[in-house]
Amino acid sequence: MKFDIMRDRLLDGLNDVMKAVSSKTTIPILTGIKIDVTNEGVTLTGSDADITIQTFIPVEENGDQLINISETGSIVLQARMFNEIVRKLPTNDVEIEVSNGLQTHIRSGKSEFHLIGSDASEYPLLPEVSTDRQFSIPADLLKSIIRETVFAVATSESRPVLTGVNWQIQGNELICVATDSHRLARRKTNLEHLPTDVSSVVIPGKSLNELNKILGESTDAVEIVITNQQVLFKTENVLFFSRLLEGNYPETSRLIPEEFKTDITINGKSLLQAIDRASLLAREDRNNVVRFETLEGNVIEISSNSPEIGKVEEQIQVESLEGEHLKISFSAKYMMEALKAIDGQDVVIQFTGAMRPFILRSVHDDAILQLILPVRTY
Amino acid sequence: MKFDIMRDRLLDGLNDVMKAVSSKTTIPILTGIKIDVTNEGVTLTGSDADITIQTFIPVEENGDQLINISETGSIVLQARMFNEIVRKLPTNDVEIEVSNGLQTHIRSGKSEFHLIGSDASEYPLLPEVSTDRQFSIPADLLKSIIRETVFAVATSESRPVLTGVNWQIQGNELICVATDSHRLARRKTNLEHLPTDVSSVVIPGKSLNELNKILGESTDAVEIVITNQQVLFKTENVLFFSRLLEGNYPETSRLIPEEFKTDITINGKSLLQAIDRASLLAREDRNNVVRFETLEGNVIEISSNSPEIGKVEEQIQVESLEGEHLKISFSAKYMMEALKAIDGQDVVIQFTGAMRPFILRSVHDDAILQLILPVRTY
Repeated sequence: MKFDIMRDRLLDGLNDVMKAVSSKTTIPILTGIKIDVTNEGVTLTGSDADITIQTFIPVEENGDQLINISETGSIVLQARMFNEIVRKLPTNDVEIEVSNGLQTHIRSGKSEFHLIGSDASEYPLLPEVSTDRQFSIPADLLKSIIRETVFAVATSESRPVLTGVNWQIQGNELICVATDSHRLARRKTNLEHLPTDVSSVVIPGKSLNELNKILGESTDAVEIVITNQQVLFKTENVLFFSRLLEGNYPETSRLIPEEFKTDITINGKSLLQAIDRASLLAREDRNNVVRFETLEGNVIEISSNSPEIGKVEEQIQVESLEGEHLKISFSAKYMMEALKAIDGQDVVIQFTGAMRPFILRSVHDDAILQLILPVRTY
Repeated sequence: MKFDIMRDRLLDGLNDVMKAVSSKTTIPILTGIKIDVTNEGVTLTGSDADITIQTFIPVEENGDQLINISETGSIVLQARMFNEIVRKLPTNDVEIEVSNGLQTHIRSGKSEFHLIGSDASEYPLLPEVSTDRQFSIPADLLKSIIRETVFAVATSESRPVLTGVNWQIQGNELICVATDSHRLARRKTNLEHLPTDVSSVVIPGKSLNELNKILGESTDAVEIVITNQQVLFKTENVLFFSRLLEGNYPETSRLIPEEFKTDITINGKSLLQAIDRASLLAREDRNNVVRFETLEGNVIEISSNSPEIGKVEEQIQVESLEGEHLKISFSAKYMMEALKAIDGQDVVIQFTGAMRPFILRSVHDDAILQLILPVRTY
């Protein structure tokens, strides 16, 4: 194996696949990155067994020669070390050569590194994914869908299936739901050409977070292939595989109330900032709880009280306030994350009394729904 | 006590004094910031007993009214909480009022915080510093002096006096020396009006690092007052006090060799980058040691070897190379820090054999001298 490559392109590729490499893996070869050189280009693969990321750098792109291949072949190099070396090389031309089996030479300018690689045949094979059940989402929309749901997954492993986001396909609608059983985020998206033979999978939250880092804010299509145990996200040069979570995702639609006693329309940003301030004084041992009360004259009050430190109160003018008087307490953290997911617009909040879950959504559409369970303090 | 203040100016002041406040203090009142309001303005004080920072915000500055004072007085408020609150207030106008002794009200827009303060009379008094022994250094020069020496102080407390930088005054020269007994940094600066009755003090490295963060890159004079136990740095609105370290600082001048066997002039940046690369493979259990060897034809070789991972070698063309052939090993970390202190210019390195300390300095002047002890590997 021997090739010359533009350092910057190699670094970009490494930057993607490094996101799958974990230093905590129990499988030694997965601390490495696999490099496969064919006459078409260089493929880099990184994996932590749950997530596998593969990126392809072509020999030529838009008329620019990126790689000059002298001999094809494969090698696995220690990921962190290889990445650091490439980052610090003195010139933009990098030559990588494998001789005598696993002896790898990395040359740039007058700098020469000699690393001992591992046998590429020991590296796990990619999951097999047939492309029958393929559909596509523009990258920027996929990023929004991830951002609006993934924060609500459970962080505790006590119910493993809740650490993932449930993707359901119903007709021409993709419904993504995450809940940690204290709050829930749901995002509905109308899409064309959805597969008809898959109805529900659970994608690990960690995988979606890593995928979000790799995707750019473009409208380029991301091809998605769902199988029984794996999901594959394909962009132009990157393949992102994630295992799916096993187990039945709970039926959540019946948790969402349909009748309400108090309806409020409020500027999401003002509310977010007021809750951020109130949370400063919310005692941490009470899970950062703030109070919310409706007052006369289209005004609500946010308050918080910590006997040892002090208290805070703040009034906000709302756009509209209908229904019963309400006094409710909830987690400032959950409320702030829900408001950030709805993102700055005017928000409708609908309550069914101080002890019942309440929902938040944008005034403009129902695509995003956030549900929060209150905390009993009164 | 009652006053209105521009939030941004209050934040700037807090930002300075917060650098002295430590959450690890054993003196409860020092977790707070003292606010003193007089008819002239507001003084903020923060301290961790070693460092004390005081900043003054005047009622009026350049014709702008910054503060409106209704009632003078003093209070101590929990530092982290007060800083967070001010940072998140909704408007740029902040009203702070103390009523019924320690009840403190912070108002901005429709937001109102109520904190319980502490009695300002319990806050430690500032060290007394008479201004007889005062001299001054422009802020940017003082920052350079700190940056070029403080990295070389000892991090271990086994010889506490070595955790500080030794400032000696000899005639019209300020000589700053730091050493951890494996390497040494010395900076000489010619200054006017140096005091004649102080000859040597040791300023904690930590204090100089915090001072460096507060000073701006301006040529404004910083007034310096040295007493037996304290040093005071004064800028226009900030007083920075630090205790001095007790104990005799070792005599270091005799450690610096005066005769050399190998003299090299080399581009500092090229050498720094080559050592950075070589250090990637330098085994951590050997304290990150790299090898340096002179070759024929004004070339040196930097190399490093880690039996389990691999090796690296790199040749660098030098400006000049005189004297004996040399093969020496040293800490990559010490070498990189020394080169950074000399900063990018052509560097002279003078050796007296593989087992003796060697020195680095700029080709342009002798103001900065760096000394490193080699490591025995051959």
